[in-house]
Amino acid sequence: MIETMAGWLAPGELEQARAQMPILYVEAVPVRVDDSGEVTRIGLLLRIALDGAVSRMLVSGRVLHHERVRDALLRHLEKDLGPVALPRIPASLQPFAVAEYFPTPGITPYHDPRQHAVSLAYIVPVTGDCRPRQDALDLVWFTPQEASSPLVQQEMPGGQGVLLKQALAHVGCLS
Amino acid sequence: MIETMAGWLAPGELEQARAQMPILYVEAVPVRVDDSGEVTRIGLLLRIALDGAVSRMLVSGRVLHHERVRDALLRHLEKDLGPVALPRIPASLQPFAVAEYFPTPGITPYHDPRQHAVSLAYIVPVTGDCRPRQDALDLVWFTPQEASSPLVQQEMPGGQGVLLKQALAHVGCLS
Amino acid sequence: MIETMAGWLAPGELEQARAQMPILYVEAVPVRVDDSGEVTRIGLLLRIALDGAVSRMLVSGRVLHHERVRDALLRHLEKDLGPVALPRIPASLQPFAVAEYFPTPGITPYHDPRQHAVSLAYIVPVTGDCRPRQDALDLVWFTPQEASSPLVQQEMPGGQGVLLKQALAHVGCLS
Amino acid sequence: MIETMAGWLAPGELEQARAQMPILYVEAVPVRVDDSGEVTRIGLLLRIALDGAVSRMLVSGRVLHHERVRDALLRHLEKDLGPVALPRIPASLQPFAVAEYFPTPGITPYHDPRQHAVSLAYIVPVTGDCRPRQDALDLVWFTPQEASSPLVQQEMPGGQGVLLKQALAHVGCLS
Repeated sequence: MIETMAGWLAPGELEQARAQMPILYVEAVPVRVDDSGEVTRIGLLLRIALDGAVSRMLVSGRVLHHERVRDALLRHLEKDLGPVALPRIPASLQPFAVAEYFPTPGITPYHDPRQHAVSLAYIVPVTGDCRPRQDALDLVWFTPQEASSPLVQQEMPGGQGVLLKQALAHVGCLS
Repeated sequence: MIETMAGWLAPGELEQARAQMPILYVEAVPVRVDDSGEVTRIGLLLRIALDGAVSRMLVSGRVLHHERVRDALLRHLEKDLGPVALPRIPASLQPFAVAEYFPTPGITPYHDPRQHAVSLAYIVPVTGDCRPRQDALDLVWFTPQEASSPLVQQEMPGGQGVLLKQALAHVGCLS
Repeated sequence: MIETMAGWLAPGELEQARAQMPILYVEAVPVRVDDSGEVTRIGLLLRIALDGAVSRMLVSGRVLHHERVRDALLRHLEKDLGPVALPRIPASLQPFAVAEYFPTPGITPYHDPRQHAVSLAYIVPVTGDCRPRQDALDLVWFTPQEASSPLVQQEMPGGQGVLLKQALAHVGCLS
Repeated sequence: MIETMAGWLAPGELEQARAQMPILYVEAVPVRVDDSGEVTRIGLLLRIALDGAVSRMLVSGRVLHHERVRDALLRHLEKDLGPVALPRIPASLQPFAVAEYFPTPGITPYHDPRQHAVSLAYIVPVTGDCRPRQDALDLVWFTPQEASSPLVQQEMPGGQGVLLKQALAHVGCLS
């Protein structure tokens, strides 16, 4: 979730802003759907830390100054899934959830030690070929049942596992 | 909006049911979207009555016994827009509105002289070629501004114009 | 969930309708909220069968002919929680979920052996005193954590446990 | 919409942040509802500028660092409507709309010359006595029909009239 946006905020300025106000994020749950719109698979980014710890993540990132929410969604999906993922950005900006990540754990189910981030969360069907870029090793597709299993949930840091279950609930796939 | 579903309900039975309980409908607002998901056009079915009266309509129809809502949506979209419209049925069944059509006018903005119908309304991007079938003459694409204009609104019977404005409001295109 | 609505449908007629079309229901998840709107408790109706089996249920019932969805919600809440529960019916009819109960198990997470019912589900804060009537023994208030526990979930028949978890996800209380 | 939050951001710092990132806002549409939840009145704040220009506004304000969205909603409602308005903050944080106010007009229907603000918008029933404070002269209650009339709409700056119509559409009161 590291961002270097030359020309937008110098690193020091971003740190300063993070200490002073909530930072607006978007999050996307990439899904495969069948012809009737039913979710068949959920895509999670795989990252392996230097110490070998596995973590799985949703597509996520900041909304920039003078950037529309839907453009931020598109930009982060392209950044994380590659240029030919063909994401279907929703026609309505009504999110299925608003996730509030606090630097202090326990206030909400979401936690981000770096900052107070408020994230608009969307379910985004992708129909193309996903080729993770940046620091993600891979994008792995899970069935709804696998995605809500304890095994996957425990690999999702900061409460993203809860957000994923909210997404599954929203599309009627939480068992 | 006439349906003949051989094997489901005999005409007399449907009449009887309509007099006794609310009938479940789905309605779809077909839209064209750009890469960022923003709605650029709204598709309305054109019908011309025997007396020359023009009416414009959303895609609409009953949910049948033992049929899923998403399958009813797909069926009515294919019925009204043809087999290659490529509708993107939403992943979530949460409708943007629930429209209650009463046989008595004035209870809600919606009115259906034949029956008490309760309709789950969805916005459905279509990417393919639309070839209206059945009793519709044509599918005409309007800009959001045109779609909410008095000219178009007055051609939409039974309160579907109100439902269309609700759809435009939901996607942030109501001016 | 037994209803006797003299003057609406004779028992035989209701049976006939149930075999022919989806029946429209409303479901309400009664909750207690604090001043900031956060859900603190979920209310579940307790029923004990003749064989001693315990089941817990949401408020649920049919929408009648010529009845508005919001009036059906109010009627069933008063029927199940008593006249002084003071339910806060939502201003918007947009449900948090649409639950499709099929007579055949496995098509969706919801199952009703009697009929194909399609239910609009709402979260309804209640502020007054709840005095269950009809065939319910009691209304028991659970914390969000208790409500999603396996113990409570297994006592909720027909997939209402899944719907309850969807409600908890929608209000950000699913852990 | 002026805020002086001693201890949070010095005036210069807020200016700096506003030039660098989107600022998170909440907006509330105060409404009166009847027992069935139907909206009967919409409350708009009245402000008269030094030059005599009348403007009408929704409840609106920033989300502060380490403040929950629901606490920000409550704080701004109390600030604008007084301590005994008894607002019913929604149980779910899913907003009915996300309004993007850009410093450049025309990108969205919303415009704020001071900043790029992204606002989560909620409908909030209030049951108590409203006594506007701060720089608002009065809170005036309108019927849904009056609220969407050109007369009221033209008195709402920055696109808040559009947001109000979206709110009316969401509760089924847009004619």
